[in-house]
Amino acid sequence: MLAVNEYFEGQVKSIGFQGKDKPASVGVMEPGDYEFGTGAPEVMIVVSGALTVLLPGSDCWQTYHAGTQFDVAGDAKFQVKVETQTAYLCLYG
Amino acid sequence: MLAVNEYFEGQVKSIGFQGKDKPASVGVMEPGDYEFGTGAPEVMIVVSGALTVLLPGSDCWQTYHAGTQFDVAGDAKFQVKVETQTAYLCLYG
Repeated sequence: MLAVNEYFEGQVKSIGFQGKDKPASVGVMEPGDYEFGTGAPEVMIVVSGALTVLLPGSDCWQTYHAGTQFDVAGDAKFQVKVETQTAYLCLYG
Repeated sequence: MLAVNEYFEGQVKSIGFQGKDKPASVGVMEPGDYEFGTGAPEVMIVVSGALTVLLPGSDCWQTYHAGTQFDVAGDAKFQVKVETQTAYLCLYG
């Protein structure tokens, strides 16, 4: 059964699945500011909209638009600002 | 609030949102055979996995892999076969 997860009081929702090589999820973020924590390393691919991200160890916010992606180390926290509803694909591990 | 929709007894789940120009959803399909109906025309973009599709008026099944897309006319039905959990982005209208 497909698992739906909710974060930040439902401001972020995702559906988990098994990707080709790795566990994955697709999700949508409402506009807002979020701090996420990783367990495994993650690859975040913006599917629609844009994410402005402060990655661990960086002092520079960068904006990733639809079709672009960024890596996040494992056991790390990262900050995300969202201006319009944004869909993403996340690959874990 | 982000709306989560379920179809085919939870075998297909999606999250609706407002895309840049059009209403949109991201979703995941479990392996299976499905018939979907459109209201507005749709663009289906495969995000992960693959969809094998019989489009309205076609007698030929075609497989669309991650990164490819197909159009579906409005007020139409189309058939989809799914072999592995597959994520998609759907744009409406």
